[in-house]
Amino acid sequence: MILTVSLNPALDVTYLLDRITPGASHRVQQVTEQAGGKGINVSRVLQQMGIDTKATGVLGGSTGRTVAQDLANARIAHSFLTGPAETRRSTTIVERDGTATVLNEPGPGTHIQLSLWLEFLDRVGFLTGRSDVVVLSGSLPRWAPPDAYRQLVELIHLLGRPCILDADGPALMAALPAGPDLIKPNRGELLHATAATNLNAAIDIALRAGAPRVVVSDGPDGLFSFDSSSALHVRPPTLSAVNPTGAGDAAVAALAVGLLQGDTERQSLLRACAWSAAAVLHPVAGFIDTTILAELSAQITVHAAPRQRREPAC
Amino acid sequence: MILTVSLNPALDVTYLLDRITPGASHRVQQVTEQAGGKGINVSRVLQQMGIDTKATGVLGGSTGRTVAQDLANARIAHSFLTGPAETRRSTTIVERDGTATVLNEPGPGTHIQLSLWLEFLDRVGFLTGRSDVVVLSGSLPRWAPPDAYRQLVELIHLLGRPCILDADGPALMAALPAGPDLIKPNRGELLHATAATNLNAAIDIALRAGAPRVVVSDGPDGLFSFDSSSALHVRPPTLSAVNPTGAGDAAVAALAVGLLQGDTERQSLLRACAWSAAAVLHPVAGFIDTTILAELSAQITVHAAPRQRREPAC
Repeated sequence: MILTVSLNPALDVTYLLDRITPGASHRVQQVTEQAGGKGINVSRVLQQMGIDTKATGVLGGSTGRTVAQDLANARIAHSFLTGPAETRRSTTIVERDGTATVLNEPGPGTHIQLSLWLEFLDRVGFLTGRSDVVVLSGSLPRWAPPDAYRQLVELIHLLGRPCILDADGPALMAALPAGPDLIKPNRGELLHATAATNLNAAIDIALRAGAPRVVVSDGPDGLFSFDSSSALHVRPPTLSAVNPTGAGDAAVAALAVGLLQGDTERQSLLRACAWSAAAVLHPVAGFIDTTILAELSAQITVHAAPRQRREPAC
Repeated sequence: MILTVSLNPALDVTYLLDRITPGASHRVQQVTEQAGGKGINVSRVLQQMGIDTKATGVLGGSTGRTVAQDLANARIAHSFLTGPAETRRSTTIVERDGTATVLNEPGPGTHIQLSLWLEFLDRVGFLTGRSDVVVLSGSLPRWAPPDAYRQLVELIHLLGRPCILDADGPALMAALPAGPDLIKPNRGELLHATAATNLNAAIDIALRAGAPRVVVSDGPDGLFSFDSSSALHVRPPTLSAVNPTGAGDAAVAALAVGLLQGDTERQSLLRACAWSAAAVLHPVAGFIDTTILAELSAQITVHAAPRQRREPAC
């Protein structure tokens, strides 16, 4: 079973309207709501692909109840703690011409809440004991400590399970010394988190800080995978993107399946590239277009990444 | 006791951010939520002014629960039915320079739901029996019949109570034959509902259709009041508006107090003009700046409205 951990889940709301005019009043034509956030999207893809998964995290308030209800409707197994603060909403305003304007509410809480955090560690520990692989995804809310992911990675390793971390910024960097088995930032996130000016330098920093393996997603260019001895570039065919949101989460879901099944790095990366490309072709984040998976997989290429050999990370 | 009826209440959400750029992703700096909709705003003003009030209507889903919770927190007495569809949200995005962009969700429901409507009539009948004056405010949701306000006015009159109707468009026009004791559209709403080209013609249409008294709010120009024999213009001093939203609801609250206390038309209009002006000076819709009420009242003028005499409505 693959456990996904969402510390800062969201209710994804989509508003359809003709055209947005700042300063005017608008009648929204259609409203859709879906449980969102990276970890939940990973569980949604896994559930769609028939892989046993459970989502955990913290939900609060009426938005939190709507998220839980949507998970129940989608038959995604979940075990969320109830927190004191309202779960955030992420509203995307889509105009008739396709322009998408995103309004992200700040996450819940105003300060670190140690009692909630300890209760949450307890829940993750309990669920990890019943899981094979754990996926940690997304931003940290203000109630969690800044080294939350480091503590979670240490807990998961104490319990003998592997984990994937998909985070960015200081939350990612603080976790690397604990050695998450695989990290999956996108190119921009990795450059920003490491404050490096090029990808090679950023990879070096991440590997030396403690990440044994770094998979970088790079939009239409596919995935780059690095460890201390190898560098691979997995490239999908050229696609007309329908909705790129959630493509990274589909890749993470596939990489978790690779860990679950003990696949080779190459098998795992091929699956991640195919699921990610199929996610781009589906209009709703967290879903993949399964009808085209076999055709996509046949067109994916794997090369050595164009990168000089380095000293192995110590 | 003044009963307010909100068939289509809303959760008013305010997002503060620096500047909105269509097509970009934004981090919202502050989120505030308040129970909204015209009827609830009327009850909020009455509660603030120490007048016994109760709010009724239909709420649904998690947004409905948030509205009910906010009413409870504000100690506004309420008795809402629970409907099957999610209560709408009305989101105002306020930029640092004060530009306000409004996104109104469509109301709940997709078709007329007769069982819900009959249950609601039952609730309004029960509550009207315990009230002195009833206020009907706002738009109709899609689950209510198009002559909903006509049926409600007839029910309230059967029970021997007076009512005020603050609605627009076909919902307003369909109710006039039932003779609501007072209607309070704003100038634009009345012109639009009657399809008249000037205010005199619009007033004639409304009076002849069955409204015994029409009070028209006209922004900074104040209020115009018409019945078959008189026409008055009540004008406030010039003000620097802080937030004009809710000024009409404050006027309706005051007019309801006039009916409750059996005040003269002049007394009632003076109070409505003062409360409305004091609402414009308060930053939050549904509240009035009570510190300035006495000063405002002293500066309000009452004149005969500049209007030719007409044949009395038959």
